[in-house]
Amino acid sequence: MVKVKVFVTLKESVLDPQGKAVSNALQSLGYDEIHDVRIGKYMELSVEPSGRDIETVVREACEKLLSNPVIEDFRYEIEEAVIR
Amino acid sequence: MVKVKVFVTLKESVLDPQGKAVSNALQSLGYDEIHDVRIGKYMELSVEPSGRDIETVVREACEKLLSNPVIEDFRYEIEEAVIR
Repeated sequence: MVKVKVFVTLKESVLDPQGKAVSNALQSLGYDEIHDVRIGKYMELSVEPSGRDIETVVREACEKLLSNPVIEDFRYEIEEAVIR
Repeated sequence: MVKVKVFVTLKESVLDPQGKAVSNALQSLGYDEIHDVRIGKYMELSVEPSGRDIETVVREACEKLLSNPVIEDFRYEIEEAVIR
């Protein structure tokens, strides 16, 4: 099994009202140091190597299902194989 | 400004129905290699250094607001200061 970490974030130009709300909540709790919050998704996939290239599979999955390419960017990290 | 990345994940023992749904969707799209999906949150904070220790501020914010310690774990990475 190979573990893949996927990070999906809003594009820089897209407003993040959820992040703004969290930022305001942090301010009102007294954490004035924290100025800006952007919220994204973090996914951990367990991939069983097959004939296909893992990177291709993961990239396609990100483009088709895991992110919305209109407003989101994604990146992924493929970790070393773990023997189970 | 210091950039902090926060990862919030469900504890291992907690079921992840959202991840299960994504996993099933990937299977039906033909990505049979992807067996298991766990979904978490990824947050990027911009922190302005003040008198307080940044690590303490971030850990407290995670414990009090950014995660639910009953069902979630968190970890964070503090990046080097960026001059803006």
